Amino acid sequence: MAPIRNARVLIKERPGDQDYPEPGKHTVYDETPTIDLENAPLNGGFLIKMLYFSIDPSIRGRMRTLELGKPLVKVDLSGSDCPKSLTFDIRRIYNFGIGVVIRSENSEVKPGDHVEGIMDIQEYNIRQSVKGPGGNPALTLNVIDNPNKIPWSAFVGVVGMPGKTAYYGWKEFAHAKAGEVVYVSTGAGPVGSFVIQLAKKDGLKVIASAGSEEKVKFLKDLGVDVAFNYKTTKTSDVLAKEGPIDIYWDNVGGEMLEASLAASNQRARIIICGAISGYNSGNAQPIRNLFQVIYKSITIYGLYVFEHDHKYREEFYKNVPEWITKGEIKYTEEVQEGLEKVGEAILAQQKGQNVAKSVIKVADE
Amino acid sequence: MAPIRNARVLIKERPGDQDYPEPGKHTVYDETPTIDLENAPLNGGFLIKMLYFSIDPSIRGRMRTLELGKPLVKVDLSGSDCPKSLTFDIRRIYNFGIGVVIRSENSEVKPGDHVEGIMDIQEYNIRQSVKGPGGNPALTLNVIDNPNKIPWSAFVGVVGMPGKTAYYGWKEFAHAKAGEVVYVSTGAGPVGSFVIQLAKKDGLKVIASAGSEEKVKFLKDLGVDVAFNYKTTKTSDVLAKEGPIDIYWDNVGGEMLEASLAASNQRARIIICGAISGYNSGNAQPIRNLFQVIYKSITIYGLYVFEHDHKYREEFYKNVPEWITKGEIKYTEEVQEGLEKVGEAILAQQKGQNVAKSVIKVADE
Repeated sequence: MAPIRNARVLIKERPGDQDYPEPGKHTVYDETPTIDLENAPLNGGFLIKMLYFSIDPSIRGRMRTLELGKPLVKVDLSGSDCPKSLTFDIRRIYNFGIGVVIRSENSEVKPGDHVEGIMDIQEYNIRQSVKGPGGNPALTLNVIDNPNKIPWSAFVGVVGMPGKTAYYGWKEFAHAKAGEVVYVSTGAGPVGSFVIQLAKKDGLKVIASAGSEEKVKFLKDLGVDVAFNYKTTKTSDVLAKEGPIDIYWDNVGGEMLEASLAASNQRARIIICGAISGYNSGNAQPIRNLFQVIYKSITIYGLYVFEHDHKYREEFYKNVPEWITKGEIKYTEEVQEGLEKVGEAILAQQKGQNVAKSVIKVADE
Repeated sequence: MAPIRNARVLIKERPGDQDYPEPGKHTVYDETPTIDLENAPLNGGFLIKMLYFSIDPSIRGRMRTLELGKPLVKVDLSGSDCPKSLTFDIRRIYNFGIGVVIRSENSEVKPGDHVEGIMDIQEYNIRQSVKGPGGNPALTLNVIDNPNKIPWSAFVGVVGMPGKTAYYGWKEFAHAKAGEVVYVSTGAGPVGSFVIQLAKKDGLKVIASAGSEEKVKFLKDLGVDVAFNYKTTKTSDVLAKEGPIDIYWDNVGGEMLEASLAASNQRARIIICGAISGYNSGNAQPIRNLFQVIYKSITIYGLYVFEHDHKYREEFYKNVPEWITKGEIKYTEEVQEGLEKVGEAILAQQKGQNVAKSVIKVADE
């Protein structure tokens, strides 16, 4: 069989620390590679035809590991959101995707199996094993059993990394008690919207913010008690009125984290899961009132989702598809078709323009 | 019996946020009050003759609750290092002291008993109960049993609040394992020096810093593995060479906290116990790299000592006097005589000038 297109997305140049990543300038769609599906050497591994890729805010951090003005080098990932021991070919953008195995020389998987995990953003991926190099859980591929017939795209969203982030972090760190007050920033995102629903299940009063009226409406649909647009309403004013807060789920950092520290109750828990306020504006925004943790006995947890995989993955894959099937957990997606849309999707997300989980459809099964 | 002097220390004026508290200007020694020891009405309470007062960095924070330029008002303590529900007469400076009961109408204590806790910095105090108002543990008086005949001054230091801060915080939050690396800032202080010794007991490699060669020598005497003067050696350089660190005991905030976040190992624990870098320079120094908690799975604990009193006080009062008697725990004191020295002692401590625990002797027993 003749080789066919195996298009991919590359980083052409590192964006400046205060730049948004522009398609064509920083990211580029490259449709020159080809692959012979029947004869490409697998060396004991397996060949995956990709179906969906997730677009996540953390992609931006990986671009920072490139040397400014020096494209196409291999680098150590220290300082990004991955453990420093990993080395990647950072010309390629990698992220969570799901695909179907079409050829295998490894007994771990057989053709027709669906696998999900971090892969190069390319139409086809070849992997040696479902195990991550060095046992790294961040690079493990999950073989997905799907008895509930959830759409495959959900496995890079609510049943994927964002869902795990919400579920593992909430179970491990929230120590939630009915009647407590939680504030969730970026509440309309895939992590925040799941956290909100977990908090409502646990009987908490939920305050949540988002950056547009459309998103605020979505928050209300999720059952949020106090939903507000942080661009038109001051976070500190809302928290002063509706707090003090017992839990803050932080996807933002900067001013929102400061406002939350100031509005925290005694023994509050702050779960830091992202810091998008600093991703495109140079360094992260500084925090000036961290001393508040002392007399309020606050605990701040850094949430790195893979740290908790061994503890929660079984219950996660059992519970979440069931909840979705029963309608107990809602989720939304914005699906665009074709890898040529990846650059625009990354940019829109960094600018906060998408309303639902951003997903790229690569191919039908 | 004729009334005798009952001298006290007052706050005359709130220091500006970037000022050090100057004796005479901001703090003042007032020897005008008198007390009739035999006839002063106790209203069912008891009269305490003070023996020692502790001088602690946190005194500075209490001055911040005064309105600038408006002395002598009652204020709510929100934003200081005490729970916001308390109200004090803030003309008086209060802090930890120990004294002997000389008259009592309350069955909780009898003449000759020694009591320790937060009291007005004055030669005599009258209290209604050993219980704090509203059950507040920060205002509880401890009736001190002293079978080991430890010097009474130690009960405002290594067997008092600083000792409890070190002991409770280490036991509750360090999750220390032999072979791990801990960094202790202000290692020569009463809290830091105790933490260092607890860490050595647990088999850790200890890095510690202080602000003078004399203090660094004291650190080495305590068995610190890597002791350095942060004024002449860059903290980040030391931590890069001797880390990564598994535990950071933070008394400082600001740059040292940033350097420690940068040098933290996976799953590091940061125990925030003070932020003296910001106490006399306006707001606390900002933290710009808090996002490091995410991919390193760092936990940050705010240590408010009284939060943990119910859990650890019994073992604390059993273990620590024994350790001191056996020479297993060393401590040092700088004792000055007379309440007229309080203003200078507060200033010297805020400037980092004292080498050992700062204590004011009020009277012989």
